[in-house]
Amino acid sequence: MFRHTKLLQFEARPEKPDPVYAHKLQELIGGAFGEMSVTMQYLFQGWNCRVEGKYKDLLMDTATEEIGHVEMLATMVARLLEGAPATMTAEAVKDPVMAATLGGMDVQQAIVAGGGALPADSNGYPWNGRYIVASGNLLADFRANAAAEAQGRLQTARLYNMTDDPGVKAMLQFNLARDTVHQKQWLAAIEELKADGLEDEIVPDALLDVEDQTHNNTIWGLSDGPDGPKGGWSTKAGIEYLTDPKPLGGPGTAPHPDPALYSTYSPTMDAVGTAKGKAKSVKNKLT
Amino acid sequence: MFRHTKLLQFEARPEKPDPVYAHKLQELIGGAFGEMSVTMQYLFQGWNCRVEGKYKDLLMDTATEEIGHVEMLATMVARLLEGAPATMTAEAVKDPVMAATLGGMDVQQAIVAGGGALPADSNGYPWNGRYIVASGNLLADFRANAAAEAQGRLQTARLYNMTDDPGVKAMLQFNLARDTVHQKQWLAAIEELKADGLEDEIVPDALLDVEDQTHNNTIWGLSDGPDGPKGGWSTKAGIEYLTDPKPLGGPGTAPHPDPALYSTYSPTMDAVGTAKGKAKSVKNKLT
Amino acid sequence: MFRHTKLLQFEARPEKPDPVYAHKLQELIGGAFGEMSVTMQYLFQGWNCRVEGKYKDLLMDTATEEIGHVEMLATMVARLLEGAPATMTAEAVKDPVMAATLGGMDVQQAIVAGGGALPADSNGYPWNGRYIVASGNLLADFRANAAAEAQGRLQTARLYNMTDDPGVKAMLQFNLARDTVHQKQWLAAIEELKADGLEDEIVPDALLDVEDQTHNNTIWGLSDGPDGPKGGWSTKAGIEYLTDPKPLGGPGTAPHPDPALYSTYSPTMDAVGTAKGKAKSVKNKLT
Amino acid sequence: MFRHTKLLQFEARPEKPDPVYAHKLQELIGGAFGEMSVTMQYLFQGWNCRVEGKYKDLLMDTATEEIGHVEMLATMVARLLEGAPATMTAEAVKDPVMAATLGGMDVQQAIVAGGGALPADSNGYPWNGRYIVASGNLLADFRANAAAEAQGRLQTARLYNMTDDPGVKAMLQFNLARDTVHQKQWLAAIEELKADGLEDEIVPDALLDVEDQTHNNTIWGLSDGPDGPKGGWSTKAGIEYLTDPKPLGGPGTAPHPDPALYSTYSPTMDAVGTAKGKAKSVKNKLT
Amino acid sequence: MFRHTKLLQFEARPEKPDPVYAHKLQELIGGAFGEMSVTMQYLFQGWNCRVEGKYKDLLMDTATEEIGHVEMLATMVARLLEGAPATMTAEAVKDPVMAATLGGMDVQQAIVAGGGALPADSNGYPWNGRYIVASGNLLADFRANAAAEAQGRLQTARLYNMTDDPGVKAMLQFNLARDTVHQKQWLAAIEELKADGLEDEIVPDALLDVEDQTHNNTIWGLSDGPDGPKGGWSTKAGIEYLTDPKPLGGPGTAPHPDPALYSTYSPTMDAVGTAKGKAKSVKNKLT
Amino acid sequence: MFRHTKLLQFEARPEKPDPVYAHKLQELIGGAFGEMSVTMQYLFQGWNCRVEGKYKDLLMDTATEEIGHVEMLATMVARLLEGAPATMTAEAVKDPVMAATLGGMDVQQAIVAGGGALPADSNGYPWNGRYIVASGNLLADFRANAAAEAQGRLQTARLYNMTDDPGVKAMLQFNLARDTVHQKQWLAAIEELKADGLEDEIVPDALLDVEDQTHNNTIWGLSDGPDGPKGGWSTKAGIEYLTDPKPLGGPGTAPHPDPALYSTYSPTMDAVGTAKGKAKSVKNKLT
Repeated sequence: MFRHTKLLQFEARPEKPDPVYAHKLQELIGGAFGEMSVTMQYLFQGWNCRVEGKYKDLLMDTATEEIGHVEMLATMVARLLEGAPATMTAEAVKDPVMAATLGGMDVQQAIVAGGGALPADSNGYPWNGRYIVASGNLLADFRANAAAEAQGRLQTARLYNMTDDPGVKAMLQFNLARDTVHQKQWLAAIEELKADGLEDEIVPDALLDVEDQTHNNTIWGLSDGPDGPKGGWSTKAGIEYLTDPKPLGGPGTAPHPDPALYSTYSPTMDAVGTAKGKAKSVKNKLT
Repeated sequence: MFRHTKLLQFEARPEKPDPVYAHKLQELIGGAFGEMSVTMQYLFQGWNCRVEGKYKDLLMDTATEEIGHVEMLATMVARLLEGAPATMTAEAVKDPVMAATLGGMDVQQAIVAGGGALPADSNGYPWNGRYIVASGNLLADFRANAAAEAQGRLQTARLYNMTDDPGVKAMLQFNLARDTVHQKQWLAAIEELKADGLEDEIVPDALLDVEDQTHNNTIWGLSDGPDGPKGGWSTKAGIEYLTDPKPLGGPGTAPHPDPALYSTYSPTMDAVGTAKGKAKSVKNKLT
Repeated sequence: MFRHTKLLQFEARPEKPDPVYAHKLQELIGGAFGEMSVTMQYLFQGWNCRVEGKYKDLLMDTATEEIGHVEMLATMVARLLEGAPATMTAEAVKDPVMAATLGGMDVQQAIVAGGGALPADSNGYPWNGRYIVASGNLLADFRANAAAEAQGRLQTARLYNMTDDPGVKAMLQFNLARDTVHQKQWLAAIEELKADGLEDEIVPDALLDVEDQTHNNTIWGLSDGPDGPKGGWSTKAGIEYLTDPKPLGGPGTAPHPDPALYSTYSPTMDAVGTAKGKAKSVKNKLT
Repeated sequence: MFRHTKLLQFEARPEKPDPVYAHKLQELIGGAFGEMSVTMQYLFQGWNCRVEGKYKDLLMDTATEEIGHVEMLATMVARLLEGAPATMTAEAVKDPVMAATLGGMDVQQAIVAGGGALPADSNGYPWNGRYIVASGNLLADFRANAAAEAQGRLQTARLYNMTDDPGVKAMLQFNLARDTVHQKQWLAAIEELKADGLEDEIVPDALLDVEDQTHNNTIWGLSDGPDGPKGGWSTKAGIEYLTDPKPLGGPGTAPHPDPALYSTYSPTMDAVGTAKGKAKSVKNKLT
Repeated sequence: MFRHTKLLQFEARPEKPDPVYAHKLQELIGGAFGEMSVTMQYLFQGWNCRVEGKYKDLLMDTATEEIGHVEMLATMVARLLEGAPATMTAEAVKDPVMAATLGGMDVQQAIVAGGGALPADSNGYPWNGRYIVASGNLLADFRANAAAEAQGRLQTARLYNMTDDPGVKAMLQFNLARDTVHQKQWLAAIEELKADGLEDEIVPDALLDVEDQTHNNTIWGLSDGPDGPKGGWSTKAGIEYLTDPKPLGGPGTAPHPDPALYSTYSPTMDAVGTAKGKAKSVKNKLT
Repeated sequence: MFRHTKLLQFEARPEKPDPVYAHKLQELIGGAFGEMSVTMQYLFQGWNCRVEGKYKDLLMDTATEEIGHVEMLATMVARLLEGAPATMTAEAVKDPVMAATLGGMDVQQAIVAGGGALPADSNGYPWNGRYIVASGNLLADFRANAAAEAQGRLQTARLYNMTDDPGVKAMLQFNLARDTVHQKQWLAAIEELKADGLEDEIVPDALLDVEDQTHNNTIWGLSDGPDGPKGGWSTKAGIEYLTDPKPLGGPGTAPHPDPALYSTYSPTMDAVGTAKGKAKSVKNKLT
C-alpha cells in the first residue's frame, strides 16, 4: 500500500514558461526510458520478486521514488506551459517568432490536457506496458535496469543542454544525480547476486551444459569489416572470430500447405523450380 | 548492402508438427526480446555508430546473423504448423484433445498467415519499433544489448522446457549457445570501451561534476522493508541508505490555467482550499 | 512524493492456484478500465488540477489507493500461477484437462514474466497512456471517472461470477466495495462542483450563447426505429426529435490537388462527372 | 444497412486555407474523443444493445449522425490544406513565416494522404478500437457517452479559440451545439434508465449485498492534503473519510517459482531476508 | 450524411451458438483486412477523392455498404455468443470439452463487451487507423483496394472451412460473393483509369524521365536461388536479371556526432579502426 | 542466412544537412509503406512461400535488396542531421529561422537516437508488424506488393519535390527507379501466376461455385451520386448496378444476455419497444 505527500521530492519550478521545452520534456515522462517506465518496471519486478529481503526492498524503494519523479516532471511541464499561446490564430501566426513557438509545441498538451503533461513521449506516442521488463530473473532484470537508467541519464543530459532556465537546470541536476546512483546500485546489485551465489555471468545460470558447445563461443563474421577480430573480446574473453562461416542447415523451405487455407502451391514446382512452359499444374484447392 | 543464401544458419526441422508450440514460439520471433528486436536493434546501432572499426564491425556481424535467426524461427513455425487442424469445426471440437489443441493455437497463424509465422509475439501483439534501443552512446547501447540477450536466452530456456521434440530442442540448443556468446561479447565490449578510454562507468561520461553532488550517492528508503541497508552496495559501492528521507521540494501545484482552455479554476480555492458554503466563485471562463 | 508499506491494502490469497483465471484477471490490471488506468488517470488529473483543496485532495487520495490495487492484483496473479503447468510438453498435452488448462492460460505470464502478472489486459494487449483522461476540466474528468469506475465494477462483477475460490472472491468483494464508493464519490463531486458554482450541466460551461442555437436541442432521426421520439428525454429534458431531417450543407467535395502531390485529378471530371468516351483528359502532373 | 447522401450535414468550408489548423483539427477526427470514437462507440453499443426500442433507436440515430461528422471534418481538413506549401524545400524554409508554417503542419497529411485528412489524432497517433466502450450495460455505457461528449465539446471549444476563420467557426458552432444536446440526451437517458427501473445508481445494479459492507462507504486518506474531509460528499453522500487508514492485508509476497522458469530464488532468503556472508545458497535451477 | 435502417443487408443468424467461432470471426471485423478497414479505407478515399463523378460514387457506394458488413458480423458474433459459458469456474473447467471451449474463447468478448463483438481482430488486437490507405492517387488506392478485397476473401474462405453451421455458412456465402465483385470492380476501375487517361501503369505517372534510367529495369540477384532469371517477367516484361550485382555506393558511415548528444566517438578510430593499445583517445564530450 | 558489405547499394550523401527534411524522410524508413515494411513483407512471404523456385527466388532477391534500402535511408538521415541545432535553448529560439527549423525537426532523432534515424514514420509512430501482408496465397500477396510499391513510389515522388539538395535527389532518383521496376515485376508475376495455372482472377481461386450467385456481380447503389452506373465496369466487366437496393436480412437484434454479465435487459422492452409509464420491469440480474 502507498501513501503520498503533496511536497515534491525536489523543487520543479522554471524561471519562466517555455512551451517548446515542455514538448521535449515529455520524453522523460512517457518515453521508453522515461519515469513511467522505471516506475512500472521496478513495481512489477518488486511484486514479482521471489527473493524476500534486500533485493526486493531495493526494488520497492526505488520504484516508490520513481512515482515521485513522474510527479516532478508533470508539475514542471504544467508550469512551463503557463501562458503558452494556446489560442494563437492564423493571424497571430504571421509573427514568425510566435509561429515558430507554435510549431515547436505539443498541440495535445493544450487541446487534450488543457495545459498539462501527457502520459506520452516527445513524439506524442503514448507510454505502453511493453516497455517494461519484469522476468522474475533478477540478473536479467537488473541488467535491464542498469541499461534503462543509462538511457534515462543520457536523455536527461541531452535535454540539460537544450535549456538555459536555472529552475529547469536545477531539477535536471537532481535527476542526473539520481540516475547516476541508480546506475551504480543496479551494477552493484548485479555483483551482489554473484557474491550471494544466486546468479552467475550468463542468464539464466542453467542449460549451459545442454547448449550447443560448438557454437557458444564464436562470433560469425557475416559483415565485411576487417576489424571484428581486433576486438579485445577475442583475447580477453576468449571468443573466437569465424571468418567466412558457412551455413549449418539445409534450405529454408515451408511444408505443403493445408488445401483449406488456399495458399498457393504446385507440386511440379517442388521438383523443377519453375512450371513455365508446362501444362497447367494440378492445383491444390478445396472448392 | 546484404546478400542471402537459402541455406539456414542451423537446421530448423521438428520431428513432428505441434501447433500449440508454434503459438508459443512466436515470442522468440516478434516479442520485445525476440529475434526481430535484436536484428533491428543491432542494425540501427551499427548504422548510427560513430566509431568506425571493431565496434561497428561487431554490431554489423551480429545484426546480420540475427536476420538469419528470424528466418530459422519462421521456418520452424511453418513446419510445426504442418497438418494443424485449421479447419476444425464445432463438431470436431467435441473431441476434447482436438478442442484443447485448437484452444492453444494462434488462430491468426491460420487465418492471416495461411499456416506460417507472424511478425508478432506469443500474445499476438505485433512487433514494433519502440522495442529497440539505438542511442549513439555505445556504453548505453551495449548494456541494453547484454540485457536483451539475457532476456532472450531466458525466454529460450523457458521454451526449451516446454517441448520434447528432438528437432526443436536441437535448434534451441543452438540458439541458447548463440545467446550465451552474445551475452559474453557485449559484456566484453563494455570492458573494451573502458579500456579504450571511450566510456567509463556512468552513462554518459559527462555532467558528473554538474549533477547534484548531495544526491548522487544515496538510496532513498521509501518502502518499509528493513533489509534495504543490508545490501552489499552500501559497503562495497559506497552508496548511503537514507532512512525516512524528507521531501526537498515545495507542494506540487499547477499554475493558473489559460481561460481559453476551460480548465476548472476558482481563485478562492487557492486561499482556503475549499469554497464550500461560500458565494459562487468568480469563474475564469472565456464565453 | 510517495511512500510504500509492504502490507497489502487487502489480503490477496487464493485458496488454490488457477492459471486460467490468472489470465482473465489481467483485465483488471492492464485493461482499459483496469487499475493501471485509474491509477494514472487520477494521478495526472491530480497533478494537473488547478483548484487547490478538497478536489485535488480527493484525486490524490484515490490515486494513491489505486496504486495499491495494482499491487493486490499483481500479487494475486502470481499466487494463482503457483505450480501452473508452465513446462507442459506436447506429450502432456494429450491429457485433455491439462491441455485445456494450457489453452486457457496466458503464455506470456510464463515465458515473459516467469510466473507473474503483466502490464497488459486479458487479450495480452499492453496498457497504454491513451486510456487515461486528464483534461483539466474537473466536470469533464469527474464524469470520466464515474464512467471508469462503472466499467471497472462491471468487469469485476463479471469476473466474480467466473470463480468459486473463497480467497479470490474475498478480494473481489473488497474491490466491488471500493468501486461502489468511488462511483458514489465522483457522482457526489460532480454535484459539489455545481454547488460551488465552478461548473454547470454542460462541459465546458462556456460558448453556450455562441453555439448554433437552432441545433443544440434536437435529436436527428437518422435510423428507422420508431421509438426514438418515445424517450422521456423528449418531454423531460425538452429535447426535440426531428423525423426525416435534411442535410444542411452542400456536397462534400475536396479541392483541386497540389500537382506536386500526384493525386489523381481531371478537370473535365468536375463538370460532367465522367470522362468516359472523351479524349484523354489533361493530366495535372509535375513531371 | 446504411445509405449516404453526398450533401454534408452542415457546411464545412473555410474562408481560406490554414494548414497549421488542419493539423490541430485531426484531434476531432481521430483523437480518443474525436468523431471516429463516438461513431464506433455508438455503433457497437447499438448493435450490442439488448433492450429493443427507444434506447437502441437513440443509439443508432446518434451513431449514424456521427459518421457524418467525420465526413464534415475530413472535408474541412482537405479544404484547409488547399495550396499548402507541400513542396517547400530547404531554400524556401529560409523565409521564417513559411518555415514556421511548415513546422506547424502535419507532414503525413501531405506525404501519406496527398492533402487530405488522416484517421489519426493531432499528434499523428492512429485511432484505435480500444478507445471505445460498449459493455452491454446501458448505465455504464451512457455514463461513458456523457463523458465522451463532454471531452469532445471541451476540445471543440479549445479549438474554437484557435481560429478566426468565419467558415471554420460556423462549423464548430454547429459541432458545439450537437455536443451540447448529446450531453443532455445521455444524461437524460441515464435518468430514464432509472425511471424505467432498468438500472439504479451503482453499476452494475447487483452484488451490492455481497460486496464488503465495511469498505463500500469510506474514502481512504492516503495523501496528506487536509481538505479531503471537507468535501460535501462527506455530509451529503454520507461517505466517511478515514484519516490515516491501516493496511488490511499481509505482506505482498510472491510464491516459490517453478524451477523450469529460472526465476531467481533462494530458500535462505525467505527466512533472513539476506544471504550476505553466508555460504552460497542452494539454487533452484533446472539444468 | 448517412441514414440507417435496422434491417441487415443479409441475414446473420447461426443455427446454434459457437463461442469458439465467435472468437475467430473477430478477424473479419477488426483485422487488418476486416470490414472496419474497408469501411474506413473507402470512406477516407471517397472524402479525399479529387475526381467528382463515377469514381467517387463507386467509392461512396462501396464504403456505405461496408459499414453494413461490420453490422452483420457484429450481430452474428453476439448471436454466436448466446449462452456461452461466461461464468464457468475452475470446478466446471474439469470437464474437458467445456474447458477446451473456454480455452478457445475470446475472454474479452465476455468481460469487456458483455457477450458482444469487439473492434479488434482474432488475437484481440484493436483495429487502428494505420491499416487504411487513402493517398489521393486513385491508381495507387484502387490497387490497395483490390489487394484488400483479395486478403478479405481469402480470410473469409478460410473461415468458411472452419464452421459447419448452415446460418453462418449462408452469411459467409454472401460475403464471399461481395468480395468477389469488389475484387472485380477495383480491377475494372484500374483499367478505367487508364482508358480515361488519368493514370498509366506506374504510380505515380510522373518523374519517369527523372528517375535513374540505369536501374529502373533490373532485378538484383541478391539471394542464391538459381530460378530468379527463369521468371516470365524477364522475357515478357523485359526486366533484366543481374547476377552477382555490386554495390554502387561508398561505405555507410555516420558523421561526427554533436558533443552535446554524448554519442560515443573517437577521432583515432576513424583512421585505424581500433584504438586498442593506444593512449586513451581524446573524448568528444561536453562536460 | 545473410551476409553484409559495408558498401551501400547506392550513394546516400546530401550536399548539406537539413534536419527538417530528415524528419520527413522517416516516412520512407518506418512508415506503413516504408522500406522496413517491404523488407519484412517480402521476407515473411519468402519464408512462407510454398512454391519453390522462381517465385520464392524473386521474393528473397527483392527482400534482401530492401534491407539495404533501410540502410541507405538511415545513413542519409544521420548525414542530414549533422550539425543540427540539437541544443538550441529558448534564447536561441528567438531567432525565427532557427526557431522554425527546430519546429520542423523530429525531437526524438536528437533525444532518443543521438542524431540518427528512428524505426518510426514521419509522425514519430513506430513501425509495427501489422503493416505487413504474408498470407501464403501468392496472388493475394503479389497484389499487396504491387500496391505497396505504388504507395512507396508515390511517397518518394512527393518527397522528391520537397528538397533541392542534389545528393538527396540523386538517391531518390535511384529509389524511384527501383520502385518502378518493383511495381513492374509484381504486376508481371501476377500474370505469370495465371499463365502457370496457379491462380486466376479472383482470390482465392476457390469457392466460386459455393458463393452466393445472386450477389457476386452487383454494385449496391447506397450513395446518391448519379454517376456510379456510368463506370466502364458496368459494360466491360459486366457488373450490374443496383439502384435503390433493399436490405435482404431481418432486424439486427442481439440475443438475451447472460444474467451473470449484467448487460441491461428488460423483457417488456422486446414487445413494446419502450417501458415508459409501466411498472418497473423485471430485471434480469444475478445478485
